[in-house]
Amino acid sequence: MSWIYFFDLCGTSVFALTGALAAGRHRMDPFGVTVLAAVTAVGGGTIRDSIIGATPVFWLRDPNYIIVILATVLATLLLVRRPRKVPQYTLPLADALGLALFTVIGAQKALSLGLNGMSAVVMGLITGVGGGIIRDLLCRQIPMVLRTEIYATASIIGGIGYTVSLQLGMGPKVALWLAMLSTLAIRLAAIRWHLSLPAFDLKTKRE
Amino acid sequence: MSWIYFFDLCGTSVFALTGALAAGRHRMDPFGVTVLAAVTAVGGGTIRDSIIGATPVFWLRDPNYIIVILATVLATLLLVRRPRKVPQYTLPLADALGLALFTVIGAQKALSLGLNGMSAVVMGLITGVGGGIIRDLLCRQIPMVLRTEIYATASIIGGIGYTVSLQLGMGPKVALWLAMLSTLAIRLAAIRWHLSLPAFDLKTKRE
Amino acid sequence: MSWIYFFDLCGTSVFALTGALAAGRHRMDPFGVTVLAAVTAVGGGTIRDSIIGATPVFWLRDPNYIIVILATVLATLLLVRRPRKVPQYTLPLADALGLALFTVIGAQKALSLGLNGMSAVVMGLITGVGGGIIRDLLCRQIPMVLRTEIYATASIIGGIGYTVSLQLGMGPKVALWLAMLSTLAIRLAAIRWHLSLPAFDLKTKRE
Repeated sequence: MSWIYFFDLCGTSVFALTGALAAGRHRMDPFGVTVLAAVTAVGGGTIRDSIIGATPVFWLRDPNYIIVILATVLATLLLVRRPRKVPQYTLPLADALGLALFTVIGAQKALSLGLNGMSAVVMGLITGVGGGIIRDLLCRQIPMVLRTEIYATASIIGGIGYTVSLQLGMGPKVALWLAMLSTLAIRLAAIRWHLSLPAFDLKTKRE
Repeated sequence: MSWIYFFDLCGTSVFALTGALAAGRHRMDPFGVTVLAAVTAVGGGTIRDSIIGATPVFWLRDPNYIIVILATVLATLLLVRRPRKVPQYTLPLADALGLALFTVIGAQKALSLGLNGMSAVVMGLITGVGGGIIRDLLCRQIPMVLRTEIYATASIIGGIGYTVSLQLGMGPKVALWLAMLSTLAIRLAAIRWHLSLPAFDLKTKRE
Repeated sequence: MSWIYFFDLCGTSVFALTGALAAGRHRMDPFGVTVLAAVTAVGGGTIRDSIIGATPVFWLRDPNYIIVILATVLATLLLVRRPRKVPQYTLPLADALGLALFTVIGAQKALSLGLNGMSAVVMGLITGVGGGIIRDLLCRQIPMVLRTEIYATASIIGGIGYTVSLQLGMGPKVALWLAMLSTLAIRLAAIRWHLSLPAFDLKTKRE
């Protein structure tokens, strides 16, 4: 099993966890939990594969993704029974790890299909934030990625880092770790110190 | 005209009806009604065809789907004039019928394209619930499928029933009716007796 | 550079502007602004290319679209600093222009790929309104297109006008201008005089 593939299944599991926990906050039933876990976990990659034209999309060709999601949902339902037992930062932390993993995987897939560097960064971003955006839409919230602390920024910097590292001649594994750790570091720093970019504010008083 | 095709057009019509009625509850104009009817009717199948790679998607190749949707919208606008004349259960009942029809059609299409059984169940689910989820999102509601009585569950059981029946050697028509009627029966029972799976509840008091 | 291509980049820019202004009304950060501008600008065309099967979708093959979006966002962030300086009608006007441009481009692309006239009208509609619907969903609003004054109607009439004009033997450029100006005229008239189609109203008092 390659590193990339292992990371992909790990990212699938942590994003499935964030979807399942979000479902629990909205009191969904077990199948609602499964649906929300699944769209969070494979939503970004599904959009990526659909617009690249890599169809049937990855999880239709490899049943391991669905199996990982079902196992994660089962574990979440069995282990996370008391709301108070879920530490406040569980969801953001798991989300940051998934963001870092999926960003490099998306950029890597785009480059392996011969797309240019700019498209690779966008594909990393879509893979990283797409699932979370769908999760938030289904829970009727303005997606976290668009409003809160530095989030998309972390993915974009990671994607640029990955693409540039490769073009500078670094090995694929080095570039992957570098991009992943920098994405994770930026996102965790943003969570810890509530770092934000200045908002673009056109809100009028009457609104 | 094959059975499958006839069922597909019937499912398109009932889902278009649920979309049109939902649009009426939000006071949309006739073209908003048409758009909502259309996305409800062909939204799930469009996602299915896009991620399988069966493009151009089905309704671009066969104009009958658009014609059925337009006819359903016209009939709804002309016949359903008084709110009080719409019985309370019209929307859930039509929705249950569409769910049963589209579940087996989605699973059947996936199997006919050579996908594995697990993917066929997921494709049945996406075809069955995808349009309704988009409808609810456009009306700014947390999708019914994720919260209320047994819904996705009915589709999943129907999809498993269809796939397993075929593998046990039943004829395609028998498997189709069996899966469709069991999906419908489970969903109608859930509506009648308000059957629910226990919610996964992580909601904290302050929220 | 062909007329069609120039119009496409113009439409991309004005839709990116409407997305960026909408993001400002919801106090998003610069990357939220960029994401909202991008989905508004290329969302409709991305759905169109995905369901037609024209993958990788247009903006993955031609970096100019991403460049136009980034330039528009940068200009918006730098030039639009005071809320009071944005005239009330800026957003609807830019939106009307984008609608007219993208409607004819979508219909033109569908016809060039050999789809029938009915599908071409729908493709024009999806290209014209798809991005705006995603923009409104991400801002947690019931999409403008489904509720307010004549909007989808303008796109549909423009699409029918374009398709019929070509079948009557008019030149491509004449048909394009005719369809674009009629879409724009209908939409601007609807904004100016608050023209609406009668709503389909099933709303009950208790709701």
